Amino acid sequence: MSAVDFPAWSREVAGRMEGVLAGLVPSARITPSRLHDAMRYAVLDGGKRVRPMLVFAAGLVTGARADRLEIAAAAVELVHAYSLVHDDLPCMDDDVLRRGKPTCHVEFDEATALLAGDAMQSLAFQVLSENRLADDPDVQLRMIQLFALACGSRGMAGGQAIDLDAVGKPLTLPELENMHIHKTGALIRASVLLGALCGSPLDAERHAHLDRYAKLVGLAFQVVDDVLDEEGDAATLGKTAGKDREAGKPTYTSLLGVPGAKQFASDLLAQAHEALSAFDANAVRLRELADFIVKRDR
Amino acid sequence: MSAVDFPAWSREVAGRMEGVLAGLVPSARITPSRLHDAMRYAVLDGGKRVRPMLVFAAGLVTGARADRLEIAAAAVELVHAYSLVHDDLPCMDDDVLRRGKPTCHVEFDEATALLAGDAMQSLAFQVLSENRLADDPDVQLRMIQLFALACGSRGMAGGQAIDLDAVGKPLTLPELENMHIHKTGALIRASVLLGALCGSPLDAERHAHLDRYAKLVGLAFQVVDDVLDEEGDAATLGKTAGKDREAGKPTYTSLLGVPGAKQFASDLLAQAHEALSAFDANAVRLRELADFIVKRDR
Repeated sequence: MSAVDFPAWSREVAGRMEGVLAGLVPSARITPSRLHDAMRYAVLDGGKRVRPMLVFAAGLVTGARADRLEIAAAAVELVHAYSLVHDDLPCMDDDVLRRGKPTCHVEFDEATALLAGDAMQSLAFQVLSENRLADDPDVQLRMIQLFALACGSRGMAGGQAIDLDAVGKPLTLPELENMHIHKTGALIRASVLLGALCGSPLDAERHAHLDRYAKLVGLAFQVVDDVLDEEGDAATLGKTAGKDREAGKPTYTSLLGVPGAKQFASDLLAQAHEALSAFDANAVRLRELADFIVKRDR
Repeated sequence: MSAVDFPAWSREVAGRMEGVLAGLVPSARITPSRLHDAMRYAVLDGGKRVRPMLVFAAGLVTGARADRLEIAAAAVELVHAYSLVHDDLPCMDDDVLRRGKPTCHVEFDEATALLAGDAMQSLAFQVLSENRLADDPDVQLRMIQLFALACGSRGMAGGQAIDLDAVGKPLTLPELENMHIHKTGALIRASVLLGALCGSPLDAERHAHLDRYAKLVGLAFQVVDDVLDEEGDAATLGKTAGKDREAGKPTYTSLLGVPGAKQFASDLLAQAHEALSAFDANAVRLRELADFIVKRDR
């Protein structure tokens, strides 16, 4: 998948993921239908598939097999999609529009959306354990552990709790960064590390460089999200715009202003490229992805 | 732990689990405090710990190490507790009392309860992957897979979806059974199988007997729950009584009457003992537990 340019490659990954996820999430013909229907609604046909792209791009660095990468990527995307379903619920962000469609609880109902999210998390761990992802099963157990940590109270779910707690409060830049390291950064970091772990082992130094890249890209992703939320409109974003500001949530644009946030994103991008300097041409997709994440318009 | 009588053994398991869970769920001193506080509130100091007892009792049959069993039992109890937290939410059963205390969303808030449940599921998979549970790591991967299946859309979460769908509808006995096989049966079955898998491998026949025992006990558990819900009061149950009937939910007592449901529970108990007939004295706790599950008064 490396002879093509980045847009073609990213379409290829997105297309492959659609097929993989459609195969992994049970059909709505299987009981309980409405639950399976809601799970499919939440994860299929939507999103930029940035995390799966990160899994595949990191796997390229360690020569990982595509059939393993697609499973790791599916697990990450299932958890990402479940977190959006729960995040959109009335008791959380109470959002009605996501990826240009009604949110899951609007299309179905709150109870079904809650259970669909719960079941998508279980399914992520099921696919990570029922397929062979690494030659050494102990490495695979470490991958599951790493992923579980990224999902839990000291990862993504913890980041959402910090976010809840921050509404209407002035945060310092380090506090805001701490929130995002957890809320979006943890799963983005897990995407990169899982992708790499599907292939040949990296030495400690290269692993640390890759980890640094992942953290920088995760943070940059959120900074750009804040800029887009401030500048975008619902039609381009596929979700309600200006929502965070209205909700009194601290953002990079509220702390740094739009130009300051844009500058911060480009500094992070430069550092992400620097972190990859020890890698050869196999890291090309990781480099392109960092550019894509910072320069995207939705 | 087998020289003592059943009440002493069950207190020993419950006491041990309290310590294990208190050590596994992060302290409220660790950020995000409110989330960790809610997780501890939901899983500590409560419940009969029936599932951990099943893990330990099954482990006795295969000579499993207690330090492995306590981790498997903690994972099951974390998922059980998370399912209660989500089940009690206003969009589900909207319950205010659980184990004699305000439910998690009443004590904290809905968003925190939602995230606490989410993070407890992640933590269950974390503990199952970060500790050595079987000599063969491939067996451990199979344990995680089995557990994920029991939690997901074709297990516990699926059972809750079937339950939602059944409110106010007349169900046949097989339909009611199908709901409970998923809703409560899946996790009870997983408890028994995980406990056994922590020890020496069972041959296929004995594994099938144990699986049959687990399914029978899971169903009996629910039948007795329905009887207690019909006959009990909030003080004894530690939760709102008669709730299922009021909610128009189909139950064993509504289909069979109280005497019919009690008879059904004793038939299941007899079959559970029959399923254990191929096992020796090491299955004593499994036998006692079946009796306990059917004869309990709360």
